[in-house]
Amino acid sequence: MARAHLHPPSAARADAAARLPSRIAFLGFGLIGGSIAAAVRAAGYGARLSAWTPGGNGPAEGVRRGFLDEAAPNAAAAVADAELVILAGPPLAILAALREPSSSLRERAAAGATITDVGSTKGLIVEAASAAELPFVGGHPMAGRETAGAGAATAELFVDRPWLIVPATAARPVDIQRVESLAIATGGRPVRLSSVDHDAAAAAISHLPLVVAAALVESVAGSPDPSRAWSVARSLAATGWTDMTRLARGDPDMGAGILATNAAPIAGRLRAFRHELDAWIELLDARAGEPEALRARFEAARALLRDEDR
Amino acid sequence: MARAHLHPPSAARADAAARLPSRIAFLGFGLIGGSIAAAVRAAGYGARLSAWTPGGNGPAEGVRRGFLDEAAPNAAAAVADAELVILAGPPLAILAALREPSSSLRERAAAGATITDVGSTKGLIVEAASAAELPFVGGHPMAGRETAGAGAATAELFVDRPWLIVPATAARPVDIQRVESLAIATGGRPVRLSSVDHDAAAAAISHLPLVVAAALVESVAGSPDPSRAWSVARSLAATGWTDMTRLARGDPDMGAGILATNAAPIAGRLRAFRHELDAWIELLDARAGEPEALRARFEAARALLRDEDR
Repeated sequence: MARAHLHPPSAARADAAARLPSRIAFLGFGLIGGSIAAAVRAAGYGARLSAWTPGGNGPAEGVRRGFLDEAAPNAAAAVADAELVILAGPPLAILAALREPSSSLRERAAAGATITDVGSTKGLIVEAASAAELPFVGGHPMAGRETAGAGAATAELFVDRPWLIVPATAARPVDIQRVESLAIATGGRPVRLSSVDHDAAAAAISHLPLVVAAALVESVAGSPDPSRAWSVARSLAATGWTDMTRLARGDPDMGAGILATNAAPIAGRLRAFRHELDAWIELLDARAGEPEALRARFEAARALLRDEDR
Repeated sequence: MARAHLHPPSAARADAAARLPSRIAFLGFGLIGGSIAAAVRAAGYGARLSAWTPGGNGPAEGVRRGFLDEAAPNAAAAVADAELVILAGPPLAILAALREPSSSLRERAAAGATITDVGSTKGLIVEAASAAELPFVGGHPMAGRETAGAGAATAELFVDRPWLIVPATAARPVDIQRVESLAIATGGRPVRLSSVDHDAAAAAISHLPLVVAAALVESVAGSPDPSRAWSVARSLAATGWTDMTRLARGDPDMGAGILATNAAPIAGRLRAFRHELDAWIELLDARAGEPEALRARFEAARALLRDEDR
């Protein structure tokens, strides 16, 4: 898969960090929010970072680790004076905040602040922000780790990763510039997309694999097991199995939020995938004695991946 | 996933290598065959290793890299005098060699040699060896790499990995002991299984993921793309996508051989998997607005994986 290999020079990250507004607030502060804070600090951002979450653990961890200035007692206190507000909770929390913006969020918007998010889906989120006429630029930094939470945050999480950017209808040029600076300050690569293109691409490359990983686990580890296959298989630690089920170890709230906010594109991808599976089943039922057809099919799939590498 | 973390002490590997017969021959010599040769050499095996493949590249590489003594000009020359013959080609080549054993293979068997293999399926292979009344012990070292061929061989490929062992009906105790010594000399962990249990477990944990990876690639990269999702997605390099399609980069001959020789268990697993997918599609169609059901399903899948870790 094509991927940029050059790190943005530290100067580019520092320049971008210097362009960021002098108050940034996070609502939600887990792996992604924490890593953004750690990354802009690493790029030299010296002004104030505050955060609030319902439970408070993430911000406390950020203060303890030194990349957050303030664990705010409530959302209003976190966003007070902020010129950039980052909604960094799960997708459904982001959506709720945009569908019924708090008075403090509206007040910051009226005072010229920019609002962005880090959600894995963009259509419903950007639509809600547009309906509320908020100065909102949706963001999706395409990076993650198996381990969730601000305790796993790292300043290098976004280096060379795409950071997808989808402006809402009321977004001003300054809002887009601030969010692009945020992405660059973390080492990410800003990529502008429409919300439709974003959600279609994410459904294909990210959300389909998530559901497939969960269904693999269910079908192998969750079914009655008359052949004892699982009791044998679970001891075998095959690398392929581990790779292909890793996504199913993620946060269930995150998974549910992704599916709930991108349901139709994901369902479409699942149907296309099932169509290919059906063809494999048919091939196995009818022509297992003719390995040439099986070989040709594996060969064609590998060729598609090689196209991708170019 | 449970996995032994202690390396077998070098002494155990050396003891096992010392118990191996003084002539070992490979028919087929790619990543697995080459890694076996490199591993027994690393364990101190000092006697003669010879190999033959139809193309000759693998054995030539083995001689060049110093872990093979002889690149034989034909199969008969490779097995001459061998007391342990390792069938290390693709599954269909192994099956062909056992269904119509060459006169040199029968001659070595009559002289007391042991025959084993490294194929990823065991039912048809062990059945063919049993029908031919060969002194055969099927083997399946559960290890691999993305890169195929003897050029990618490494002496540490099997360390701490299961090496599944399925004796044919005519196998003698000495045959089983030799193949177990081979596994231990490479650092592997011998595990005895019936061929039915082997193929059911491998279908679940290894062959199902292989087909799923290929179908994922086909459904995303191979279909008409009116939304341009793929042209966007291919530039995004998501880690989950890379992990979940890695198996589709493997050797198509290997994949075809696996499916052709384990068709019914794999088809059964694909049907069970499709059943779970259908339930996800139904959930998305009917209840995307009710994320609690989606969350509960992700939560249950994650719990199954945690059971596996224990």
